[in-house]
Amino acid sequence: MSVDRYGGMHPVSKLLDYEDFMEALRKAIRPKRAVEKVGLMEAVGRVCASDVIAKSDMPPFWRATFDGYAVKAEDTRGASREVPAKLRVIDTSKPGSPVKVRVHRGEAVKVFTGGEIPEGADSVVLVENTELVGELVKVYAEVKPSANIDAAGSDIRKGEVLIRAGTVVRPTDISLAACQGYKEISVYQRPSVLIIPTGNEVKPVGAKLRYGEIYDSNSHGVAALLREAGGEVEISKPLKDDLDLIEATVRKVTTHDLVVFIGGSSAGAEDYVSVAVSKLGKVLAHGVRLSPGRPTLFGRVGETFVVGLPGHPASSLAVTIMVLKPLMMWLTGRPKTYRTVEAVLDSDITGVEKGFTYFRTVRLEDGLAKVVYRSSSMYSSFLGADGYIVFRDAAPKRGEKVIVNLL
Amino acid sequence: MSVDRYGGMHPVSKLLDYEDFMEALRKAIRPKRAVEKVGLMEAVGRVCASDVIAKSDMPPFWRATFDGYAVKAEDTRGASREVPAKLRVIDTSKPGSPVKVRVHRGEAVKVFTGGEIPEGADSVVLVENTELVGELVKVYAEVKPSANIDAAGSDIRKGEVLIRAGTVVRPTDISLAACQGYKEISVYQRPSVLIIPTGNEVKPVGAKLRYGEIYDSNSHGVAALLREAGGEVEISKPLKDDLDLIEATVRKVTTHDLVVFIGGSSAGAEDYVSVAVSKLGKVLAHGVRLSPGRPTLFGRVGETFVVGLPGHPASSLAVTIMVLKPLMMWLTGRPKTYRTVEAVLDSDITGVEKGFTYFRTVRLEDGLAKVVYRSSSMYSSFLGADGYIVFRDAAPKRGEKVIVNLL
Repeated sequence: MSVDRYGGMHPVSKLLDYEDFMEALRKAIRPKRAVEKVGLMEAVGRVCASDVIAKSDMPPFWRATFDGYAVKAEDTRGASREVPAKLRVIDTSKPGSPVKVRVHRGEAVKVFTGGEIPEGADSVVLVENTELVGELVKVYAEVKPSANIDAAGSDIRKGEVLIRAGTVVRPTDISLAACQGYKEISVYQRPSVLIIPTGNEVKPVGAKLRYGEIYDSNSHGVAALLREAGGEVEISKPLKDDLDLIEATVRKVTTHDLVVFIGGSSAGAEDYVSVAVSKLGKVLAHGVRLSPGRPTLFGRVGETFVVGLPGHPASSLAVTIMVLKPLMMWLTGRPKTYRTVEAVLDSDITGVEKGFTYFRTVRLEDGLAKVVYRSSSMYSSFLGADGYIVFRDAAPKRGEKVIVNLL
Repeated sequence: MSVDRYGGMHPVSKLLDYEDFMEALRKAIRPKRAVEKVGLMEAVGRVCASDVIAKSDMPPFWRATFDGYAVKAEDTRGASREVPAKLRVIDTSKPGSPVKVRVHRGEAVKVFTGGEIPEGADSVVLVENTELVGELVKVYAEVKPSANIDAAGSDIRKGEVLIRAGTVVRPTDISLAACQGYKEISVYQRPSVLIIPTGNEVKPVGAKLRYGEIYDSNSHGVAALLREAGGEVEISKPLKDDLDLIEATVRKVTTHDLVVFIGGSSAGAEDYVSVAVSKLGKVLAHGVRLSPGRPTLFGRVGETFVVGLPGHPASSLAVTIMVLKPLMMWLTGRPKTYRTVEAVLDSDITGVEKGFTYFRTVRLEDGLAKVVYRSSSMYSSFLGADGYIVFRDAAPKRGEKVIVNLL
């Protein structure tokens, strides 16, 4: 018996191995290089498009790192509680209020943390090692030159790279940009993604359903996953399974970077997307040895990538994770981040077909990974799932250690 | 010599161990329980406030999982390519277009994936195991009862919990909510956070600086970290170091859940926050054996938590990570997530004082963790850092394995 259950319905002439399918995507995709400037907070999580460079030395001047007295170190030589040095306080330097005086031998300037060290002084005596008596400060401890001082440029040098192009901007990075007066950062534009659910029986969430109709649920999970992956995502109303309609839609949506059709469970839609893409552009890969996700289609129309996802709920989510998230990564130039844990499989996995890559959801319980996955048509394949395992050829056995990717 | 460099300036009468300081916070904080309904996409990453329950069985009816013919299994007994069963096709069932006929012995109904199984039928023969000849379908293979069918309620049962209260809503969860017609999900409100930079010398980013002035950079990194931790975050203009002004401000901001003052590097601000909080509410902890971060203050005014962060750039970011992120976790009821890697320390860490908890930024290179941290006053303590290590009492040695928390 032929196991090609899609035979006749899906013109999936030649299934590709998952790795080869992904290689076809990777080769076709060039990162989107359009750039925009965004505010500091908006830049977090985006990919930096050009190096953020320090405009000036930091600190810009010699600065006190603690409260105390700016002095010439040589004036404190041998100073102790018993034999304090006595210096004349000639001024006070506060952050934002630098002083113009020059410190000579026998003199001191009171400084607050962050205040500029006046000319002539080379060190700061901590306030707790001093006592002020009228105009004189008694210094109870010796200091070495440059003690308790940050030298000009000792923190950041003009021209230094603060945020490197191609890296994802992190919360702590924007403090570095801000200290150099940057209000905005150049980042790559988010790829614009349009999700189009199809199927005669598919209605928008919240609509009144007639018997036999279902809600468009797939779009939401797919959209949220793609937004998480850096996309600017929009969901369209469900489209009827109609070749002309699908073709007309494909013509119209080429302003987007990525268009994702999700087949209704009704027959036809996946074919129609394939036919429309063949006619208006090129199908680059159709059919993959991935379970679930076999009928997945990848093509290009003009500069727009078009993907056809299978309509079964577990398939559409699994293919989004396994195929579209890497695709988004290549499109955004964003490095892949892994969130994985190790666990021990609690039961054998059976029915594994050689050459296929399997995506199976699992629940984590006391270090055990329990398979939650039921079938491509079941929502419950994701119910209570903490993550998923991926394997190929060899069926993992009970007691085996597996890497669980967290959802 | 006393090492209490803040003596006299900061009324930090009794430093708490980091663990005790955090315990004081944890005991004071009750999660914010105000609830709001938000759209599915907005719900992702938020904490679910009440169980999302299945309203009805899924699938609502017996459904074909593949294209084929709905039949009585007994009619296919012994069928083969040589001796096919021949059944009369009486109707077609498509998703969204159920049929009213009943299948009797000798009859079949063409079904598409997702279509309802008509009464009388108990299984589906896959289309590739059939051939249609006029009104008759030749069935080339035997099927067992319930083959290629999802029974009503076999996926999800009415009343089943789809998203559990108290968990963070994930992308795949919203597909489950959508399939049951939920357009919105109840989530806990985000804590509202106000960040107030202080310091006479501190100017908003982009302002024209006079000599000795600096940009408010700390607020941005702190704000982005707290937004990442689930807060609705606002940054106020920098405030002058003035007790009356700070007191008047504390009076005004009690509509927020959390107010974070960031001390300018100028003297005074941290004291003033402490004085104002003591007067209008209660200081719950002030001073922690944390490096950097020693002068951190935690108090309450009415229902508002007030935090005073040290103004040095590396301190404000470190304390946000070490103190405010857990605080936000308790406030939002959100579980802590770890992103860590193991690495080998590339050089000894020295100068560790017993009882203190240390936060030290590191760069990762070929499995090695190289300390990047320089001092609390240096922005460059975070420049090029991939993560940070935390340790107490024992100074980690070169070659030792350390857990690096990624930034």
